[in-house]
Amino acid sequence: MSGENADRGDRDEPGASKGDFETVVAAVRERVDPDPDERARLRAVADRLIERAEAAATDRCDGADVLQVGSSARGTWVSGDRDIDVFVRFPPELDRETLEEYGLEVGHATLPGGHEEYAEHPYVKGAVDGFDVDVVPCFRLESATEIRSAVDRTPFHAQYLEARLDDDLAADVRVTKQFMKGIGVYGSDLRTRGFSGYLTELLVCEYGGFRSLLEAVRDWRPQIVLDPEDHGRASFDDPLVVIDPTDPERNVAAVCAADNVARLQHYAREFLERPSLEYFEPDDRDPLSKSELLSHLERRGTTPVAVRFETPALVEDQLYPQLRKSLAGICQGLDERGFDVLRSTALASDTSAILVELAVDERPAVERHRGPPVHIKGHARGFYGRYADDPDVYGPFVVEDRYVAERDREFTTACEFLESDQLLEVGLGAHVESALEDEYEVLVDDDVTALLPAFGSELRSYFEPVP
Amino acid sequence: MSGENADRGDRDEPGASKGDFETVVAAVRERVDPDPDERARLRAVADRLIERAEAAATDRCDGADVLQVGSSARGTWVSGDRDIDVFVRFPPELDRETLEEYGLEVGHATLPGGHEEYAEHPYVKGAVDGFDVDVVPCFRLESATEIRSAVDRTPFHAQYLEARLDDDLAADVRVTKQFMKGIGVYGSDLRTRGFSGYLTELLVCEYGGFRSLLEAVRDWRPQIVLDPEDHGRASFDDPLVVIDPTDPERNVAAVCAADNVARLQHYAREFLERPSLEYFEPDDRDPLSKSELLSHLERRGTTPVAVRFETPALVEDQLYPQLRKSLAGICQGLDERGFDVLRSTALASDTSAILVELAVDERPAVERHRGPPVHIKGHARGFYGRYADDPDVYGPFVVEDRYVAERDREFTTACEFLESDQLLEVGLGAHVESALEDEYEVLVDDDVTALLPAFGSELRSYFEPVP
Repeated sequence: MSGENADRGDRDEPGASKGDFETVVAAVRERVDPDPDERARLRAVADRLIERAEAAATDRCDGADVLQVGSSARGTWVSGDRDIDVFVRFPPELDRETLEEYGLEVGHATLPGGHEEYAEHPYVKGAVDGFDVDVVPCFRLESATEIRSAVDRTPFHAQYLEARLDDDLAADVRVTKQFMKGIGVYGSDLRTRGFSGYLTELLVCEYGGFRSLLEAVRDWRPQIVLDPEDHGRASFDDPLVVIDPTDPERNVAAVCAADNVARLQHYAREFLERPSLEYFEPDDRDPLSKSELLSHLERRGTTPVAVRFETPALVEDQLYPQLRKSLAGICQGLDERGFDVLRSTALASDTSAILVELAVDERPAVERHRGPPVHIKGHARGFYGRYADDPDVYGPFVVEDRYVAERDREFTTACEFLESDQLLEVGLGAHVESALEDEYEVLVDDDVTALLPAFGSELRSYFEPVP
Repeated sequence: MSGENADRGDRDEPGASKGDFETVVAAVRERVDPDPDERARLRAVADRLIERAEAAATDRCDGADVLQVGSSARGTWVSGDRDIDVFVRFPPELDRETLEEYGLEVGHATLPGGHEEYAEHPYVKGAVDGFDVDVVPCFRLESATEIRSAVDRTPFHAQYLEARLDDDLAADVRVTKQFMKGIGVYGSDLRTRGFSGYLTELLVCEYGGFRSLLEAVRDWRPQIVLDPEDHGRASFDDPLVVIDPTDPERNVAAVCAADNVARLQHYAREFLERPSLEYFEPDDRDPLSKSELLSHLERRGTTPVAVRFETPALVEDQLYPQLRKSLAGICQGLDERGFDVLRSTALASDTSAILVELAVDERPAVERHRGPPVHIKGHARGFYGRYADDPDVYGPFVVEDRYVAERDREFTTACEFLESDQLLEVGLGAHVESALEDEYEVLVDDDVTALLPAFGSELRSYFEPVP
């Protein structure tokens, strides 16, 4: 603390000189801007793919056309990204089954050796000259509000952004994406719950660049509502609302968790104050060592417990919501039984673990059981009759207007609860529940070091947390 | 449990036969009704005292008169009680100072060898032929609403009850008083916070006898409001409200705690169901032995802690409210620091002790410190700046929209807190606070056996509680 003012933090934003800021951004651009050679290589591959896809598509359906979409289509990819997205549009009269059939045929014709994957439609994925290519079928519609599945929306997004992103803005999108990656908030997958590419591009367009975006974010007070086309018709609970310019009923930032909005704001402040390249470097943290873990536990005086089980065979977007639900359910189960949770996290690799750090892991043999008011005759007599002659119960006695009894607590340690059948009765993700029904293991205290081989980096982040 | 119905307790009251009830009451009356000899002895002593007091009073003030009040005046005393109350009434024109002077002179003239005590007025107390006699001066007023101090009200109470209590009701008052003594709810002192003699007599009058009182109490649903003269003008928060027939603004049951109302109801139900003499026998419980105490602690698995100090030199009506306040303050202090209280009690003799049984007596070295939302710019930057570079702090990190830090907990054991200066900062009774400032001792775990010599019976009641 440098003094009263600094402590209260209500002085004006100091901000770095524009020069420092520009120096850092220039250095970032050195790294994220694709050079002419990279651009040319991508262009050549993309053109070849589009040509092949068009031939295959129009062979099968007169009204079909082909569109390159995504960051590689509008120059907003970060140098080194190797994704090319090719969308094949079919007329809306086509039935869905035929669209899927044609879509896969066009995919295989475009990407010999490719394989099928499944999102809302099946599509084909393959590698061409070092690029990862998706060939995705969709319907060609008049407006994004008529879409039949999420992929139908993509061409509208592409058109909207292409009309607005000039070279300067595209450059700022690349810098912003790298900043978001560096601070760990980039990605709309359900593990990250952060900012998607499309959302990032919209924010840069809306605020007019990287610096002006950061300056705006610094002053955000959620709920933030942006509506570039001023056509929003629905209301949302999310901390950040960006109405899709192509669909008045959709919040582009719906998946964005409050933590990530706050984190972006934190780092916007920090970066504007002290510009530094470090914010653009994702923090791949060294695994925590066994002695470091043991010394954190010793220092903190908490009791760690972990429920370890085989990871359900699910894609990450299904797995992580289930892990989060299970984490919340187990924490609630512990808390309801008097085992106070300090902090907790869910870990997933080949095995998964719900790690809970307890502030209280033991309770006495007896617990207070508050009965009904003595004047609620039926309940009161029932309660009194049930416990009065039980030699294992203290009381009933009267406290204020009620009967109270002290009876045996079901679990006196957190471990007993975690090892009991009741663990399966807390709110768990469905596949996590099945996995636990098969088999699980409870690790307590120093035994949690067994998590280190699989989760060393995650445990460093847990025990040495940054914003 | 004898079955579903019994368990739910919503069957009709079974009730004992009238015969059983009357048999028990007859046996109680054998013990509580004064025999003719006792009555005659009391009458003789009282008459002599009144005569002496009248002579001394009218000597000093023409308009003075003398009145015997209280249970001995109206035949509602329980055999063996030895209290005679003589009130000397002076005209309201007299100034207070002269009233007090005359009052003491009359007292000494009536009770040679008596000593002065002080309630709202000074008065004289003495022993005559084995009776404890009070001679109390008061003003003679037109109505109880004009009273200048609480003693002025007593003659009105006496007149009201004398006009209503016939021999049958007086007998039922004696039985009721003994019942209340037996179940531990008799007495309006601030240790007991139960039913005063006057309140008991009013209840018996109002419901028409002992049995009808119990039958009514069995069905009470607080707040119960009784207003024998139907003239109440104020409203009260107390669970039981009995508007004083001589004062529409006074609740005769104001001191009566919810516990004691509930307790009376509990025992009314039990007694009506299974009449027994045991309910009329105050439960003077055997002191708990050291081995019994240790086995309760072992069985319960709790951590008892006690703060022991010299009892402040106060009358009980001042001491017990201070002990209760101190008990609540210390429990709150423990609770706020994470040391969960299972149950607690205040004990007083030559030394006093606040005994608290803890469910949690230890906490980890770190505690969670929730900071401001990241978007509250001034506070957020202050919080982050204060903790970011502190090597003893984990974080700050972001949870939902806020900063959170984990910092060192001030006290990791309840004992450390109780032995610290902060104990004196919780809500304490003023004289208890002074006593603690002088000196106190903290007993933990098995060391609480040191309380046994002074509080053996109280500890039996604590560890083997009855309603």
